[in-house]
Amino acid sequence: MAQSAVKKVVLAYSGGLDTSVILKWLQEEYGCEVVTFTADIGQGEELEPARAKAEAAGVKEIYIDDLREEFVRDFVYPMFRANAVYEGEYLLGTSIARPLIAKRLIEIAAETGADAISHGATGKGNDQVRFELGAYALNPEIKIIAPWREWDLLSREKLMAYAAKHGIGVEQKREGNKSPYSMDANLLHISYEGYDLEDPWTQPGDAMWRWSVSPEQAPDQATEIELTFERGDITAIDGKAMSPAEVLAELNRIGGANGIGRADIVENRYVGMKSRGCYETPGGTIMLKAHRAIESLTLDREAAHLKDELMPRYASLVYNGYWFAPERRMLQAAIDESQQVVNGVVRLKLYKGNVSVLGRRSETNSLFDESIATFEEDAGAYDQTDATGFIRLNSLRLRVAGRKRG
Amino acid sequence: MAQSAVKKVVLAYSGGLDTSVILKWLQEEYGCEVVTFTADIGQGEELEPARAKAEAAGVKEIYIDDLREEFVRDFVYPMFRANAVYEGEYLLGTSIARPLIAKRLIEIAAETGADAISHGATGKGNDQVRFELGAYALNPEIKIIAPWREWDLLSREKLMAYAAKHGIGVEQKREGNKSPYSMDANLLHISYEGYDLEDPWTQPGDAMWRWSVSPEQAPDQATEIELTFERGDITAIDGKAMSPAEVLAELNRIGGANGIGRADIVENRYVGMKSRGCYETPGGTIMLKAHRAIESLTLDREAAHLKDELMPRYASLVYNGYWFAPERRMLQAAIDESQQVVNGVVRLKLYKGNVSVLGRRSETNSLFDESIATFEEDAGAYDQTDATGFIRLNSLRLRVAGRKRG
Amino acid sequence: MAQSAVKKVVLAYSGGLDTSVILKWLQEEYGCEVVTFTADIGQGEELEPARAKAEAAGVKEIYIDDLREEFVRDFVYPMFRANAVYEGEYLLGTSIARPLIAKRLIEIAAETGADAISHGATGKGNDQVRFELGAYALNPEIKIIAPWREWDLLSREKLMAYAAKHGIGVEQKREGNKSPYSMDANLLHISYEGYDLEDPWTQPGDAMWRWSVSPEQAPDQATEIELTFERGDITAIDGKAMSPAEVLAELNRIGGANGIGRADIVENRYVGMKSRGCYETPGGTIMLKAHRAIESLTLDREAAHLKDELMPRYASLVYNGYWFAPERRMLQAAIDESQQVVNGVVRLKLYKGNVSVLGRRSETNSLFDESIATFEEDAGAYDQTDATGFIRLNSLRLRVAGRKRG
Amino acid sequence: MAQSAVKKVVLAYSGGLDTSVILKWLQEEYGCEVVTFTADIGQGEELEPARAKAEAAGVKEIYIDDLREEFVRDFVYPMFRANAVYEGEYLLGTSIARPLIAKRLIEIAAETGADAISHGATGKGNDQVRFELGAYALNPEIKIIAPWREWDLLSREKLMAYAAKHGIGVEQKREGNKSPYSMDANLLHISYEGYDLEDPWTQPGDAMWRWSVSPEQAPDQATEIELTFERGDITAIDGKAMSPAEVLAELNRIGGANGIGRADIVENRYVGMKSRGCYETPGGTIMLKAHRAIESLTLDREAAHLKDELMPRYASLVYNGYWFAPERRMLQAAIDESQQVVNGVVRLKLYKGNVSVLGRRSETNSLFDESIATFEEDAGAYDQTDATGFIRLNSLRLRVAGRKRG
Repeated sequence: MAQSAVKKVVLAYSGGLDTSVILKWLQEEYGCEVVTFTADIGQGEELEPARAKAEAAGVKEIYIDDLREEFVRDFVYPMFRANAVYEGEYLLGTSIARPLIAKRLIEIAAETGADAISHGATGKGNDQVRFELGAYALNPEIKIIAPWREWDLLSREKLMAYAAKHGIGVEQKREGNKSPYSMDANLLHISYEGYDLEDPWTQPGDAMWRWSVSPEQAPDQATEIELTFERGDITAIDGKAMSPAEVLAELNRIGGANGIGRADIVENRYVGMKSRGCYETPGGTIMLKAHRAIESLTLDREAAHLKDELMPRYASLVYNGYWFAPERRMLQAAIDESQQVVNGVVRLKLYKGNVSVLGRRSETNSLFDESIATFEEDAGAYDQTDATGFIRLNSLRLRVAGRKRG
Repeated sequence: MAQSAVKKVVLAYSGGLDTSVILKWLQEEYGCEVVTFTADIGQGEELEPARAKAEAAGVKEIYIDDLREEFVRDFVYPMFRANAVYEGEYLLGTSIARPLIAKRLIEIAAETGADAISHGATGKGNDQVRFELGAYALNPEIKIIAPWREWDLLSREKLMAYAAKHGIGVEQKREGNKSPYSMDANLLHISYEGYDLEDPWTQPGDAMWRWSVSPEQAPDQATEIELTFERGDITAIDGKAMSPAEVLAELNRIGGANGIGRADIVENRYVGMKSRGCYETPGGTIMLKAHRAIESLTLDREAAHLKDELMPRYASLVYNGYWFAPERRMLQAAIDESQQVVNGVVRLKLYKGNVSVLGRRSETNSLFDESIATFEEDAGAYDQTDATGFIRLNSLRLRVAGRKRG
Repeated sequence: MAQSAVKKVVLAYSGGLDTSVILKWLQEEYGCEVVTFTADIGQGEELEPARAKAEAAGVKEIYIDDLREEFVRDFVYPMFRANAVYEGEYLLGTSIARPLIAKRLIEIAAETGADAISHGATGKGNDQVRFELGAYALNPEIKIIAPWREWDLLSREKLMAYAAKHGIGVEQKREGNKSPYSMDANLLHISYEGYDLEDPWTQPGDAMWRWSVSPEQAPDQATEIELTFERGDITAIDGKAMSPAEVLAELNRIGGANGIGRADIVENRYVGMKSRGCYETPGGTIMLKAHRAIESLTLDREAAHLKDELMPRYASLVYNGYWFAPERRMLQAAIDESQQVVNGVVRLKLYKGNVSVLGRRSETNSLFDESIATFEEDAGAYDQTDATGFIRLNSLRLRVAGRKRG
Repeated sequence: MAQSAVKKVVLAYSGGLDTSVILKWLQEEYGCEVVTFTADIGQGEELEPARAKAEAAGVKEIYIDDLREEFVRDFVYPMFRANAVYEGEYLLGTSIARPLIAKRLIEIAAETGADAISHGATGKGNDQVRFELGAYALNPEIKIIAPWREWDLLSREKLMAYAAKHGIGVEQKREGNKSPYSMDANLLHISYEGYDLEDPWTQPGDAMWRWSVSPEQAPDQATEIELTFERGDITAIDGKAMSPAEVLAELNRIGGANGIGRADIVENRYVGMKSRGCYETPGGTIMLKAHRAIESLTLDREAAHLKDELMPRYASLVYNGYWFAPERRMLQAAIDESQQVVNGVVRLKLYKGNVSVLGRRSETNSLFDESIATFEEDAGAYDQTDATGFIRLNSLRLRVAGRKRG
């Protein structure tokens, strides 16, 4: 890409060291105007310092958006309707945030007349793919600058040297609090990569975890909560109506306090390598368990099984960055169609890392019929002799084959 | 089925009240000889009393088999290679035992010249289907007598009255120890149905559970274990080689002691109704977590994803009783093909209901490549600029579509 | 089912011998009032004789409905959006008509206060399942009378004897024209079963076929047509706008004249047996080929592949009678989501049994980009070096595994 | 890739203009030794001229292999067991040949001590991906030189100029016979791309097609053949045993003479673009139809349906070049497991582009049971009342849901 071609670039900017270096590098290397975009998606950091730093760096157009409600309502909730889990373990906390950032980058580019966007994701990871697939899907003509794939600042030392040379962010190195891990956080989760996690046999120290206590340190007393579902989404906790972002924040608080939602996995990146990651997803872990429980009561068997069979593909699409692709929309249409009936209440016990379902009920949509399921006489609600024909015909193909084998 | 047609029937016989009544009822109603078959599949009950009772009932051919190794080696282990979970929660503990019973019933029928088999499963449940599909697949000409679908002893009272009238099993009602739940157990799990579980909003009392302590009552100190996998199967615990049944028994012991493996779910039966079930699967819960962990290190990404997509169907096949059907064999062939490389060791922590992976390693088959995955400079092991082309071409279809949309 | 329980039954009535016998038998055996329902779904028979016969049999409520437009618009067209083919060959001509009949039976039962419905499908076939699953899904309390599963008129001779005894339909045996095959027809197809087809090695005589000439007898001159698609449905032939039923009737005419749409297959019935069937589906064969052609131009690759993977399941659902089940609705939602962009024109050549695509175009939604696909220099529309990174990263997992194997 | 790094390269060499230019270019640009590899995979061209040209170009190690039997036995036949069709139309004729070429390139590199391979596929197509994924899977350390992605000879004019400058192949331009299309041929098919096909609305001239007559020009008399299958593979034609390559060559001859196997499609390339291709696959078209027919008689329903659901993914894997990937091996294991019973004979009629099944039989494995399927009384082979229970339980979930809806 000819560098001279870029006139104005929108940078996904956190205010941290890396994106501060990128901001400077874009100004230097591309000689173009930089618009910064900083989003609150629940990562739990102050955003105003980012504004001050951007201003100090000479940025004229500074976007700071609170996207928490949009994030949960339009991305997290639809994904949880699918019970999406990647490779049996990962709740896609980072993956699901990227398309929203890509969407805002493209919107801001349109608003500011920028012809390019830029991000701080490395050339080895999934996030570059998610940002860029999202951006290209929404604006195929956008130019994308991925500094980590272009520059030669490929080690922390070189990056620090560049920062020092350009007077960037000495104050940012609050070394006491500095984690040796590469982290990412939003309302759904916080993730850890790198450092001692690079050996999959090594257990990380307990100091790594930030959002949850360990099960050992969680209270000896269990916490019970009731979650209300409407069309597959949680709309109330203990009967109190809440917005999507409020629900997730509250479940994170309760879950984290009870040692819930830690995962330590080796996962397969879309770019082809295996990597080790640790995740804390307290609220999401609770949501998944509860959603499955309310579905178990209200969803038709074959609808549920179809969802289960489609889920791994849906999860891969989200993981790989295809949120805005037509195949994800198709699967979402099927999933959403199924959720009309997913209404009711789930009662949960949270205790030292465990989420247990205590009960589930649905006034309007329960398909559980005690008169049929009972072990006692059912007064004719179910005719046991029906089972004979059911079995006879389901076995017919097997019996014919058996006769042939002789 | 004309009752006169049956000459000799092999009955799956536990020695309990129900099958004792069935034994008598078969003798009375069908006027045929009854062969009893009692299997040790790890349910934890003495089998010799069954022999005595069968003898007392005039049975001449009595089979009492220890099938524990065959059960785990040929049924449980192949199923766990698939990471099979039904409806996101159920580890198929009852389902996987039924085809083995069906197989032995058919084998014994051949040995004894019997023309029929019989079982004590009700007309509302899955087990009748599993027994009979298995039996028909192995011998299409076998006659099957399912008393619960034929007789009128459809309540516990009527059954007890019949037993009393025929002098059956007064001593069997050890009421002090008698559970109000309908239970089934084998080396993989114990299950509970009926009684207060028939209301899905009600939480069962803690006295129901038999194999595990509650997380609350589990030790405050965590237990760590190392599991060795060869071709997807566990062959050693903490370095000590064990047979399949020994592995599962030991994991049940350790898991149960740490409050692991309880599930309380609403599931969809193959016969079309929803039912509530509670399960304790301590060893299986550990095995699943560990198997996924060793696969995460050794299995190719697309092989793993294909397994994940096929799994729900495989689980449904096992749940529904199609173990001996060609489609299950096809899926098994695919799964087993993938397991050649699933070799290594997983280290786990067990603590109050939680199974956590502490580490995983494989000398021979790890696909984790630190030189590629590292956050530090990788000395050329991975060329970050490759990602540009990867993203550009993966987005091409989205960009073309975006241009068309304008 | 206690026969006395039925007060009024709606019978799917063709006026032919079988349903005339059923009409009488219902009156005799159930002593209940019978409502007849006769539908024009394009089977090509006069319906008024059915009215006269029903009146003669004392029926007071006679429904004769022209359902052709509803049939094609709400059933055939949605199914063709899925490219549904059962077992690689069968275009589901009979299957797709059954849910519509079931729906009308239930509607008429509601209108007339009937508590039961009845149909003339045998106990061996799929149609009983399709009628009854559809009916139960729409009204779970409906009673269903399936005479072929109840009576003892199980051979043609017995049926004829019953008819003769009750003065039914001697005039109906127009033996000159009488086919020895069991046939079913509607706007989508005509089917043949039984007689010499019961040996899968035997070729039926050419006299069997009714809707199409053989390829040998088709014109030596090809016919060319242009079909216009809007959102996946054909809305015009050769530029002339037509209703759905008009489209299908016209394509049947053109296709039949050119020897198109014959199939001779062995298929797997839902009830567990294999059966031989011959089908003529001239219009449907053309529609399928044309729909795939317009999709090839307008549909995203992954959307198309997802459709292809879901199709066999969708086809099985339709074949098995689950049109009104939630899992079919879910798949339909996914499919319909994909069809927004399926707009354009396909040009076809019809010649002696062959349907060939001559061209396809879409002003609004073509994703074919000549500037990218060209073999000539593309002026930068596509950067060939992108392929290097694409291949390098797609092969990364294979290379890592290869290194491990050594 | 540092050009100096390559010492010896194995080139997939046809002797045509393109690969002759590449041969020279490799010698010039890389200054390395070139080994040529020319394979007979049934493309129908003399191979000895390639030897002469290679010798003239100074090549010392020249490989000319007849791979026809290996090609059909180990690649085409396994693929046809899967009934693989890409996007509903394409029989994967080019795709399936590429992994064999890749395999031989890697083998020859090992034999000759070469550290690199090279091919003549362009940077826009699928073949580069197939060659390179195959090569990397078999030897992760191999270097791959793809001249079309490196050089600047991106138009035919530039290529010709280079050829002229280096004295290459003036005699090769037999302009009279020169097709304007880009073609590829092997025993399975011949393909055409480019030129007037770049407009998907344009019909190619009849002169383009080389392997088959048009249906119009095919004989007015039909041809009948019988194909014998063993474990899913054709082993005899009209009772005459033949090797795999003989079978395919003979079916190509017969099919081509009857106007069979032409396809004209728009397909989705793995690199992200749509492209137009025309194909002649006479033998393959016959094989697919016949294989489905013998499976219809011998394969269990659920095995067949599972194959149908897996097929699109299998076809995509082959199309995309993942023949040597573990997920393809997994699917193949499942497919091959199913083919044990696919034995028998299929009788076909070939007539002016049509392949019609006249009959299918299997002494050993037919699952067609006339005594069950018959429309006449079946003497108790099938109990029609079984269907009642079958339908009642299959509808139970729908009835419960219907009651809930009210």
